[in-house]
Amino acid sequence: MEAIGASGSPACVGLDPVLEKLPEELRARHMEPAEAFAEFCRVVLEVCRPYVGVVKPQAACFERFGAAGVATLEKTCRLAKSLGYVVVLDAKRGDIGVTAEHYAASAAHASADAITVNGYLGPETIEPYLKAGLGVFVLVRTSNPGGDVVQSPKLADGRSVAEMMADHVAALGAAWIGAGGMSDVGAVVGATKASEGEALRARMPTQFFLVPGYGAQGGTAADVARLRTRDGGGVLVNASRSVIFAEGNGAWHERVGAAAKKLGEELREMR
Amino acid sequence: MEAIGASGSPACVGLDPVLEKLPEELRARHMEPAEAFAEFCRVVLEVCRPYVGVVKPQAACFERFGAAGVATLEKTCRLAKSLGYVVVLDAKRGDIGVTAEHYAASAAHASADAITVNGYLGPETIEPYLKAGLGVFVLVRTSNPGGDVVQSPKLADGRSVAEMMADHVAALGAAWIGAGGMSDVGAVVGATKASEGEALRARMPTQFFLVPGYGAQGGTAADVARLRTRDGGGVLVNASRSVIFAEGNGAWHERVGAAAKKLGEELREMR
Repeated sequence: MEAIGASGSPACVGLDPVLEKLPEELRARHMEPAEAFAEFCRVVLEVCRPYVGVVKPQAACFERFGAAGVATLEKTCRLAKSLGYVVVLDAKRGDIGVTAEHYAASAAHASADAITVNGYLGPETIEPYLKAGLGVFVLVRTSNPGGDVVQSPKLADGRSVAEMMADHVAALGAAWIGAGGMSDVGAVVGATKASEGEALRARMPTQFFLVPGYGAQGGTAADVARLRTRDGGGVLVNASRSVIFAEGNGAWHERVGAAAKKLGEELREMR
Repeated sequence: MEAIGASGSPACVGLDPVLEKLPEELRARHMEPAEAFAEFCRVVLEVCRPYVGVVKPQAACFERFGAAGVATLEKTCRLAKSLGYVVVLDAKRGDIGVTAEHYAASAAHASADAITVNGYLGPETIEPYLKAGLGVFVLVRTSNPGGDVVQSPKLADGRSVAEMMADHVAALGAAWIGAGGMSDVGAVVGATKASEGEALRARMPTQFFLVPGYGAQGGTAADVARLRTRDGGGVLVNASRSVIFAEGNGAWHERVGAAAKKLGEELREMR
């Protein structure tokens, strides 16, 4: 809430570096993908800082380059923290008991503030992250079309699977409400599912919604607006490709800065 | 199937190293946890080899030590491959489209043969692993008590959520049947859920079941037997703590070897 207040916008920039999409000059300068990623992310973090308060590194992009990639992920998270960003590690982890504690320790090791998690193994498996001091965003309703066949089926009691997950999230989150009235337990709710999102908001009034699918995946500011809490807050809206690989004229870092500015403004106006 | 045939047992040893549980002599010799893990795993792999054909490194245990831990994980996977093991990376990954491709590339980078995945984002999100040449074990019914509140609720059509996931797994797996008649798409079904397991087996006749919860978590050989296919195969039974941290007399590596021998024999007799 503080980061959103300071930047004036619920914008979040996703750090999803992909080797083939990096600026030519960066690829030419670095033999190692992990080193090119480090410079790319450093520049993105610097140019987006005036407009955006939250970043979401995508663990998979870094992990595909093994230990060297993970070292860059950690370095990037720590740099983001030092620049004043809130860092949401997009790792979608989910495992039982002590294993969840290990994943929580891993995220804390990288200086993340929050982590995305998968609740299929039950709400109890989410508690270790909270106890480690992290915020969590539990996958409830994802933005990909293929998620429907798992998340949309109706239970005997009339709820969808996603609504059942939402109720678990709200129940778990009730014990982790902060000073601002919102819970440390948030939810991932895709912008492309805005019609269902209103029903999910009713079930999760104190959850921050991390909203993927804005921009490149087709979600609009109007879609996002429907996901907000009664007081017009409670959303964190992510854009990745449309910012970090912004097209147009000018040097690449100028295009990234301009796209971050535009993203921040669009979402500020929504508020 | 070949690894199980060669060892004569469907046993799988889980590599879940935990610093506090490592032998004192190892901790004394290594300042860095990742280095202690590397030696620990090397010795475990060597002493278990005569009795076991499959190992399952737990990614979280290594990731908690950051890039150094991930380097040890990769080294351990590659050593296991060079010793002739089949390697199942227990990472429980799950993300959409291109992100799943990154996770698949990460597992392939580490020389894993298969990976555990979470299907909450839909069966389409599992395909990238298969296309990368990996086998997958999709979380269907987990061994932890807390999984019940998500996996057990009944759908309007009478299936449980786990059964719905099982049907997706079977449908996806039908396109990936190998020469032995089993699919590259397997399922995680806990040994502690054996009563439900029989119904899941009926829905997933060509799926290998990766069965956690044997030994330390309370599952028995009789529980596992009920999860097999009609011809008495189709299971891969994991034990972690009861092998790698085996208690008793003798040097620690002798205890590990003895526990692996016992595990292999118990499960061979079941066959």
